[in-house]
Amino acid sequence: MNAEIICVGTELLLGNIVNTNAAFIAERISRLGIECYNQCVIGDNMDRCLSQLKESSSRSDIIILSGGLGPTEDDMTKEAVAKFTKLPLVEDAESRRSIEEYFAKRGIEPTENNWKQALIPKGAKAVPNANGTAPGIILETKNCTYILLPGPPIELEAMFDSQIMPYLQGLGAGVIFSRTVKIVGVGESKAETMIMDMIDAQSNPTIATYAKTGEVHIRVTAFGSDEKEAKKLVKPVVKELKARFGNSVYAAEDEISLEQSVVELLASNKMTLSTVESCTGGLISATIVSVPGASDVLKCGFVTYSNKAKRKLVGVKKGTLDKYGAVSKQTATEMAKGGAATSKSDVCISVTGLAGPGGGSAEKPVGLVYIGCSVKGEIKVKEFHFSGDRNKIRALSVKNALILARECILEYISKVNFG
Amino acid sequence: MNAEIICVGTELLLGNIVNTNAAFIAERISRLGIECYNQCVIGDNMDRCLSQLKESSSRSDIIILSGGLGPTEDDMTKEAVAKFTKLPLVEDAESRRSIEEYFAKRGIEPTENNWKQALIPKGAKAVPNANGTAPGIILETKNCTYILLPGPPIELEAMFDSQIMPYLQGLGAGVIFSRTVKIVGVGESKAETMIMDMIDAQSNPTIATYAKTGEVHIRVTAFGSDEKEAKKLVKPVVKELKARFGNSVYAAEDEISLEQSVVELLASNKMTLSTVESCTGGLISATIVSVPGASDVLKCGFVTYSNKAKRKLVGVKKGTLDKYGAVSKQTATEMAKGGAATSKSDVCISVTGLAGPGGGSAEKPVGLVYIGCSVKGEIKVKEFHFSGDRNKIRALSVKNALILARECILEYISKVNFG
Repeated sequence: MNAEIICVGTELLLGNIVNTNAAFIAERISRLGIECYNQCVIGDNMDRCLSQLKESSSRSDIIILSGGLGPTEDDMTKEAVAKFTKLPLVEDAESRRSIEEYFAKRGIEPTENNWKQALIPKGAKAVPNANGTAPGIILETKNCTYILLPGPPIELEAMFDSQIMPYLQGLGAGVIFSRTVKIVGVGESKAETMIMDMIDAQSNPTIATYAKTGEVHIRVTAFGSDEKEAKKLVKPVVKELKARFGNSVYAAEDEISLEQSVVELLASNKMTLSTVESCTGGLISATIVSVPGASDVLKCGFVTYSNKAKRKLVGVKKGTLDKYGAVSKQTATEMAKGGAATSKSDVCISVTGLAGPGGGSAEKPVGLVYIGCSVKGEIKVKEFHFSGDRNKIRALSVKNALILARECILEYISKVNFG
Repeated sequence: MNAEIICVGTELLLGNIVNTNAAFIAERISRLGIECYNQCVIGDNMDRCLSQLKESSSRSDIIILSGGLGPTEDDMTKEAVAKFTKLPLVEDAESRRSIEEYFAKRGIEPTENNWKQALIPKGAKAVPNANGTAPGIILETKNCTYILLPGPPIELEAMFDSQIMPYLQGLGAGVIFSRTVKIVGVGESKAETMIMDMIDAQSNPTIATYAKTGEVHIRVTAFGSDEKEAKKLVKPVVKELKARFGNSVYAAEDEISLEQSVVELLASNKMTLSTVESCTGGLISATIVSVPGASDVLKCGFVTYSNKAKRKLVGVKKGTLDKYGAVSKQTATEMAKGGAATSKSDVCISVTGLAGPGGGSAEKPVGLVYIGCSVKGEIKVKEFHFSGDRNKIRALSVKNALILARECILEYISKVNFG
């Protein structure tokens, strides 16, 4: 069984937005063992949509379209599919009701064009949209199944996982199962070298390495007639990878992020956390809070963007700031120390650095970042030189702060247990 | 003149990476007034690449390909183009020299397959790659121009801006100029209704609306023989849009984000900001800090995720938390008040809410968020009911916090000036 993805939207063709929908859908269907050889993007244009449908339907069993289901005039994906399949558009009562409810809940008066969103091709199935007014549509025809999804990623992603995945699973082509072993502290080339014998010997499961920001992911993928069979093939390979990379492995499950592994490490050791952030401006605490259950470990966070805040909120000494500057090992140390003391938390992460674009000097260039971590009074500070723009430097700071925190906590635990 | 974009890479088809190259190239060529009606993604596969080239060359003047220029066996974009155009691959002396230099500089021995990267179709022009070993290629044929670019974004983007843009400019098709009027507080349907007469009358410039999280963007795009002419066409339309949407317009320039408009509003009125965040966990301050120059306005931020932190850091009363709960109008009010007082900032944004997935009740369901804003002692709190997952609720909270802050600051300024 094969599928292809057609993303409809002039804003994609103009490069105003990045096509995250294609990557999201592709990743999901590849998990189901559905082959995908083509993705394409076309504008909100009837003729080009029809010509794309003609081509796609000649080569694919399933066509997944995203975008162009909005209430406005230029939205015409549904109309194009109806025209191509020669089916009239009819009102779906449930969709109308749900649009009514959506507006009533928000106390807004729907406009006439909103009702257009309740129309679906005759014989199709409307898929409820928990986050917007445009229902998705599943239309099965003799040659081809069309799946129409709303363009906004938050609507599309929730709908896909809750409703389209089960639908596609039901079509049953066999199952792909994969697990990702996630590693920090080892570069991609080195990681690949360490498992070259496994990569060379691979067939089913396959093994692939991916470099991510500050991480390497090793994906082990097996194909089986059912999930049980595929899982059984993956298991020993994951075990071997864990053995080879040891403590560098922070997770062996796709869903677990680095921040989640840090939250779990803290929770399982009944430790609490605080953060003191300068150039990251709250991004570390926000990343921690993105993990459900973060409330069990995060006591509080301080955004000490100004020198005054560094002094007042976490007691960095004026002398330290004057002598070494805000971006220094000494300041990072005092931030971590002061944050831990003020919040009475077991662990405190501190970050101070120059994210740019301005503010750099020959001695302290943009990209210089100090990350500190205090665990029960023991403080480690590392100096980093990141390259890239402001947001890249901040993202790398967050990633490396989490890596350092994990490292320090593991060291502390091993010392307590074996030292 | 029209172009299309073919991105080659199995990792794109599997959804392992997001296709930022397509967006980058699309944005650049749209600036030059080169029309682009198609983007597609195919895997590293000779047959599918040939069949895509056949189709694309039948409809486009310029075909821009990215990816598949690497040294490994599966890279075959160049080979496909050579085969399709029936041109032999010949070694480009300059490219070979530059590969030699690249490896010598790094003290690495090139492997045999690296020399493959010095091959280009006969008659083509090699484009030097400042950041990698694969040169780009420009191949002009009778029907069609092929531009081949390396896949890694860092290589592609630098090469495109320094060498492909000047080449394309030289082909001279005219210029597209566009500006985006950005609006908050008005839904997309309503916004469209308010300008339906303008949309109906459009030809050059064109007007299109886009719904963004919590925002509507109206893009005005004109085509002219040069930038001056195109700009002149856009100007009166933007003026009219600003008049119709008044204070709802926070920016009329593409580059300005909502957070930037808030930072600029604060800076131009010499006001300072602090934040007190619960469920957003520092995401509001991090969003503010993403704006270069945020240091001029942001005094500090508090992440008061726990009740204890709310009390200790910004003085929320125990009685308030006991009586009304952490997620309440009263708590949001005291957070904003306490944050402003502790930090001595003019403006303080507070957020407390239930981002889920756990913790909701019938009375206080997941998605309930209170956002407060204190401006010089005047506090406004709004209640929101957001739907979606944890991250969506947090993203909507950030957006609406910025919208509320903007609203309160504007009200204050207008009161001071005219009240």
